[in-house]
This record gives sequence, structure tokens and C-alpha cells, in this order.
Amino acid sequence: MYYGGIETGGTKMICAVGDGDGNIMGRVKIPTGMPDNTIPEMIDFFKTWDIKALGIGSFGPLDLKKNSVTYGQILNTPKEGWDGCDLVGQFERALGVPVALDTDVNVAILGEVKYGAAKGCESAIYITVGTGIGVGVFVSDRLLHGLTHPESGHILVERNPRDNFAGCCKCHRNCLEGLASGVALEKRYGVKAEKLYDREDVWELESDYLASAITNYILAYSPEKIVLWGGVMHQEKIFDMIREKAKKLLGGYITSPVFDNMADYIVKPGLGDDSGIVGACELAKMGV
Amino acid sequence: MYYGGIETGGTKMICAVGDGDGNIMGRVKIPTGMPDNTIPEMIDFFKTWDIKALGIGSFGPLDLKKNSVTYGQILNTPKEGWDGCDLVGQFERALGVPVALDTDVNVAILGEVKYGAAKGCESAIYITVGTGIGVGVFVSDRLLHGLTHPESGHILVERNPRDNFAGCCKCHRNCLEGLASGVALEKRYGVKAEKLYDREDVWELESDYLASAITNYILAYSPEKIVLWGGVMHQEKIFDMIREKAKKLLGGYITSPVFDNMADYIVKPGLGDDSGIVGACELAKMGV
Repeated sequence: MYYGGIETGGTKMICAVGDGDGNIMGRVKIPTGMPDNTIPEMIDFFKTWDIKALGIGSFGPLDLKKNSVTYGQILNTPKEGWDGCDLVGQFERALGVPVALDTDVNVAILGEVKYGAAKGCESAIYITVGTGIGVGVFVSDRLLHGLTHPESGHILVERNPRDNFAGCCKCHRNCLEGLASGVALEKRYGVKAEKLYDREDVWELESDYLASAITNYILAYSPEKIVLWGGVMHQEKIFDMIREKAKKLLGGYITSPVFDNMADYIVKPGLGDDSGIVGACELAKMGV
Repeated sequence: MYYGGIETGGTKMICAVGDGDGNIMGRVKIPTGMPDNTIPEMIDFFKTWDIKALGIGSFGPLDLKKNSVTYGQILNTPKEGWDGCDLVGQFERALGVPVALDTDVNVAILGEVKYGAAKGCESAIYITVGTGIGVGVFVSDRLLHGLTHPESGHILVERNPRDNFAGCCKCHRNCLEGLASGVALEKRYGVKAEKLYDREDVWELESDYLASAITNYILAYSPEKIVLWGGVMHQEKIFDMIREKAKKLLGGYITSPVFDNMADYIVKPGLGDDSGIVGACELAKMGV
């Protein structure tokens, strides 16, 4: 039995087919153009497989309310051409199988909870620090939805008084994404994050912001595991800085043995860069 | 069919019996002394009713992990005598009925979701701003637990640069409870909150902190309704200040019609001061 999975992205679409047990049997990457060209290419790939259902993890914002008239659509995204794109409807009609949709980060934590570093957890979160910052949330054994979906990458954090950077978020003066995303790093320092690896001051500030946000996620979600990844996290030392600072900020308020070994609490993904696509296939399986 | 409910507090214990449909059929208040005296008094009350189950909403921290050796106990509380008190075990043995335990704020949001201002919501939160600050969380149709239970009253907030008050939380330099609880107000200004109603500067600062935290709760939990109460909130004007500031801080990032009418989004409880005790009886019913 095969299940299709899609991870949408600003530059590429990953389409894959999984065996329902966490293994990817085939995949393609398709450059993200305009929907009218890109989506038919994606559909062509899935037509070569006999899939039972499709799961999509997408950039957002998304309408995930099943009783809404715009259910299954990408909402007001800045990505040209994709605003109002009916992801669920188009794939359902073309492939004739059930289609499930969730955020890119929600499917990533689903992949990690089922087959990765958070395997077996009833609650865990996936934080990606890349171009933007996103947080996928799995609590009470389910992916978190509500009014919309979690947007914890934008939580407000305390600005370092010496940080004069204006932030790169159009909506918030001092949200995490605006101060600590890859785009924020590039705008603050004038070069991309990977050119900054030797700059200690950069990672002191970056880990301050990330640890502060993670402390709030721990207080808010009470996760059993925190999976941390994304382009900005492709380096060793910042993990330990974040672990140490988050523990300090928690101040011993929550009592749990997990805080005795932070290296096993705030971790890299078990599935590497495949958390999202494996989770998308799992979402398909769950939807059937 | 009757269900028992308990709301524990630092000064009094509320014991009540509900009809399983949100109505309280009888209640007593018992001063909170030492467990050896107070708990037998509570047990005596419930023995006069034929209850099918008991639900307890308690101050914490609590051990809610059913497979833990200290399950059902109050953990390291500063309340003298109550550290390690086995709430679930004592009532189960004395009454011979199933006993369910959750935090005081979690049962409060349960009461509001079933019978109050958040009736019918699949996700909603209850914030109490009193002596301390607590947040009860109902998401994906369930009360939120994880590693422990939510502790969102202690999330870190951005300190107002003109606020020189050290905070009253022993664990955190700038958490919400430390800066905005009733105790914080009393320590910062030297008088109790109810003596400060005419001081505009007090409520400007207080609503800044609460709006900032509520913005983060909206981003993190995506609640369909926010119920706000507690001793400090027993006044009209601060509600509108918080609503307006939270909307401004969200910056239009999340699109939803609920933000068009904040007075119907951030609301007082529908059950007044009974959210917790009604929710405790409901917890009993759910546990059977």
C-alpha cells in the first residue's frame, strides 16, 4: 500500500511516495513556479504510482477548517500566484484519492513523532529556523489546530537592549522570526548565516532569542521532546548554547528529569531533512 | 446521577456536588488547614451524597502522569503541609469512587467549554490573574497535558524599560506572574490591587504585560475563545485595554473574523466564579 506526500516550499516542491511505514519509495523535486504549471507536474508524478491517499505539508497560512468555504487553500501568502490556491481540491479531483493538508512544520513533527527523534511521545514540537521560523505542535497525541494553526514562530520575545536591528517581520516589532530567522540574520549582518559561523557575538544573540522562545514553548506546551532544525541550525555549537540558556531561563520552575539531560531533550531530527516528507506520507495514511 | 467536584485553594477548599449537566446541587467551603484535618472534613461532606465519581481541580504543581509513582500528588508546593499530598489516593480510598485530577485552571476552562462562555469551542484558554497567574488550556477537544501541565502563567514577557520592579517570581526575572500578578501589583505599588483602580499608569502597564502574553497564547494555542478572570480582573476598563493592545500586537498576522470583535473573543467567564467547581464535576463525569 502506497501513500503520497508533498512538502511545498518557496523554491521547490518535494513529492514522494511512502510505504506507510516511514520509508520513502520514490521522490521528485519540482521547482516552484506558478501553480498552473507546477501542480500538473506534481500530479503527473503521483499518477505513475498507485497511491491510496495523499498528505500535504505546506507553507501557509492555510485554511484547515473543514467546514470553511476556503478549506484546503493557501491563504494570503506573499508567494506570487499561490494566494488562494486550492491545494486539496486540485489534487483530490486529479488523483481521485483522499487528500489531507497541514502545515509544513506540523507534518514535520508528525514524522518525528512516528519515526524519528520524538518517537512514541504524546507531545513534542518541531522548530525550524531557516528563512522563516516555524513551529509544528503535536500535543495530546494530535497535531494542534484551533482558530487556525499554531504560529509560534512569531511569538514576541524580549529584545536585547543592545540589538538595534529593526527586525524583518512586517507585522511585529519584536517577534522571534523578525529577530532570529535566517532573513533576520542576513539583514542584520549583511551576509548569509553560513558566512557568520565564526562570529561568537552573532550566536550569543541568536541563542538568547531562541532559548527565550523555547522556554516559552516549554511552559506553554509542556513537550516531552523538542526537535530543532532548519538552515540556521546546521552547526554544532549553537545547540548547546540554546540548551544551557533555556535551562537557566526555566529557573528550575518545572520539575522533570528531562531537564537533567538537555542534550536528549532539545535534539536534532531523527529523520534529517526528511521529517516533513515522511510526515506528509503519514498524514495521508492517517486520513484514510 | 451525582458527581463530586473539588477546587483546592490556598485559603479554602470548595467541595460541591453536580448533576452532570452543569448544575451545582450542593456545596461547602472548608478553610484550608493541614491535610490531616482538612481532607477528612472534605470526605465527610461527600459521604452525605451518593456520588459516582470525583473530579479535583487543584493548585500545583501536580503529578498527572498515570504511570508515575507519585501520580495524583501535589508536588513541591510552597503551601505548608501539602507538598507530597496524595489527593487522588486519599479520596479514592475513602470514597470508593474513581477520582480524576487536573489543575485548577484546566478544570476552569473545562467548565467554560462545556457550560460557559466558550461553550462548543474545540480550543479555548482560561487565564486567571489573581494572587498568581494561571492558564488552563483546552485544545483539540482535550485538556492539555504533556511532560507535566501547562505553566503559561510564567511565560517570559518583554519588560517595560521604565518598570524597575524586580518581579515577585522566585524562578524568573521577567515572567508574567512575576510582573503582573496580584502579588506583583501589591509589591510594586505597596497596596492591594483593589486600592489601585483609579491609577491609570498602573493599568496601562498591567494591560501591556497581559496583552503581550495573550498575544503569545493566541500565536501558540490558536484558541477560539479566551476567558479572562481572577481577582485583578474584577474591573471593567482593563478588558478593553487588553483587547485593543492584543489586537495591535498581533499586527494583522493571523487572519480570522474573530479579531473584528475582540469583545467577543477575550471575555469574562460565563460561569462567574464557578468555572472551576463546575469543571471539576465535569472532570468527574468524563473520568467514569
